[in-house]
Amino acid sequence: MVERDTASLAMSADELSSFLAEAFPQADAGFVIESVRPLGAVVDLASDDRHLRPGGTVSGPTMMALADYAAYVAILAQIGPVALAVTTSLTINFLRRPKPGPLRADCTLIKLGQRLAVAEVGIASNGDSDLVAHAVATYSLPPDRQR
Amino acid sequence: MVERDTASLAMSADELSSFLAEAFPQADAGFVIESVRPLGAVVDLASDDRHLRPGGTVSGPTMMALADYAAYVAILAQIGPVALAVTTSLTINFLRRPKPGPLRADCTLIKLGQRLAVAEVGIASNGDSDLVAHAVATYSLPPDRQR
Amino acid sequence: MVERDTASLAMSADELSSFLAEAFPQADAGFVIESVRPLGAVVDLASDDRHLRPGGTVSGPTMMALADYAAYVAILAQIGPVALAVTTSLTINFLRRPKPGPLRADCTLIKLGQRLAVAEVGIASNGDSDLVAHAVATYSLPPDRQR
Amino acid sequence: MVERDTASLAMSADELSSFLAEAFPQADAGFVIESVRPLGAVVDLASDDRHLRPGGTVSGPTMMALADYAAYVAILAQIGPVALAVTTSLTINFLRRPKPGPLRADCTLIKLGQRLAVAEVGIASNGDSDLVAHAVATYSLPPDRQR
Repeated sequence: MVERDTASLAMSADELSSFLAEAFPQADAGFVIESVRPLGAVVDLASDDRHLRPGGTVSGPTMMALADYAAYVAILAQIGPVALAVTTSLTINFLRRPKPGPLRADCTLIKLGQRLAVAEVGIASNGDSDLVAHAVATYSLPPDRQR
Repeated sequence: MVERDTASLAMSADELSSFLAEAFPQADAGFVIESVRPLGAVVDLASDDRHLRPGGTVSGPTMMALADYAAYVAILAQIGPVALAVTTSLTINFLRRPKPGPLRADCTLIKLGQRLAVAEVGIASNGDSDLVAHAVATYSLPPDRQR
Repeated sequence: MVERDTASLAMSADELSSFLAEAFPQADAGFVIESVRPLGAVVDLASDDRHLRPGGTVSGPTMMALADYAAYVAILAQIGPVALAVTTSLTINFLRRPKPGPLRADCTLIKLGQRLAVAEVGIASNGDSDLVAHAVATYSLPPDRQR
Repeated sequence: MVERDTASLAMSADELSSFLAEAFPQADAGFVIESVRPLGAVVDLASDDRHLRPGGTVSGPTMMALADYAAYVAILAQIGPVALAVTTSLTINFLRRPKPGPLRADCTLIKLGQRLAVAEVGIASNGDSDLVAHAVATYSLPPDRQR
């Protein structure tokens, strides 16, 4: 099984923010790319009213979208601005009720192959070490023609 | 393991719509409860701009939210208007690119125990038999004191 | 997205039993292919001591193996005797404690594409309608050169 | 949500090995508890013929059983010798073909609540940093009466 070259990043956090704002104009303005690293990314969600459930905590679907977005960012940072990576599956476990306030998603790619990427994402209240949710998602990648 | 009584429904589609509109005022206006049945529910999504991805198809996070909502409806139809059922996990597989246009989620509860419910949800373009997505979700239920 | 031709089966239950006994000589002798149908298969497990947990019920790992096997049978019935289909993921929910005695797995392929198959499997005590476990598994397929 | 006390371990690796050998006499002799730590455990699989697939690599079901076992060990190390913790779900992603030879599973409990535990498990060829499989499993726990 051939893995992709992961020694260097194809895009910076700023380049990713610009690309995603253009490619997904409907994308939630609340997601902020905090940083990218080889095989990883950190994305913050400044939760506002739209995302809240009764009791003031962030909704499950918002956390699913955040996990998916963080994984997408980590993949594009590595393979460059292709809009064709598509989510093929996502499993999320909700572990604790999030506190009101911002959330942080930290994503690590545990596989980045030619056709398939697998991402693990932990979501925590900003500054907390306990996870409020944990997701694993898989992505189908466009063929990598340069190698 | 004690299962709940499922012979009769606790709420109708109309009662569920009213309850959910009040309990989740931020809930997506695009979700329409089409019908409920013992251990099952059908929910439609009249997709509009907010949910679209490049290419005009419904986004993955929207389908996750739709699956979660349909399962929540099927559970409340059975156990009544308690806002305390919480999603503990969700696994979704994206099977085919949805056509532009409305989607229909059909949910069946494959377990409705005292503390835990497990729902299976198939999502298809309205009128199509091929699934565009398939989800399994689990819910933690409040104790059922009456039975 | 191109789907495969599913109008006819490539292998019968008997042909599959022979092929799998040869390709996987270590395979569990307790799995019996009951029947195959377009996009589906039924596999029985005559539970014996090896698979039991304290209390006399079938173990979780045995049910995982049964679900994976049933999905593999359903795929090979459709695409023919290629040993190269590989499981890429499996999610299983354990719903009820199985009674002592034989189990039956019923698998339906909810997607059979050129590169990816997705299978849904329900496991029940033989003769029972309530599921004891429910699985969804994904498979990476070898390219289909003939079509 | 009340979490359990995790400051100290209830059982050592040796005590766990003895308890599990007695409670699960059918358990696979190939699983060796390497170490336990607060909210974590390492279990090795000395792969032998029984677990191999064509090509000499460990089978998927064996890796599922290994992940489940490692999570079970990590939970019992924390809550003590109760045989009543039961797996409620397991999701596994197979990432790379394992090399022939021993595998090591490293489990971390990302939630240990009163009723529910959630475990994350990475499996790698012994000595390798790349994961061959990654699992997330959930467990229903017996009520903890002492605290």
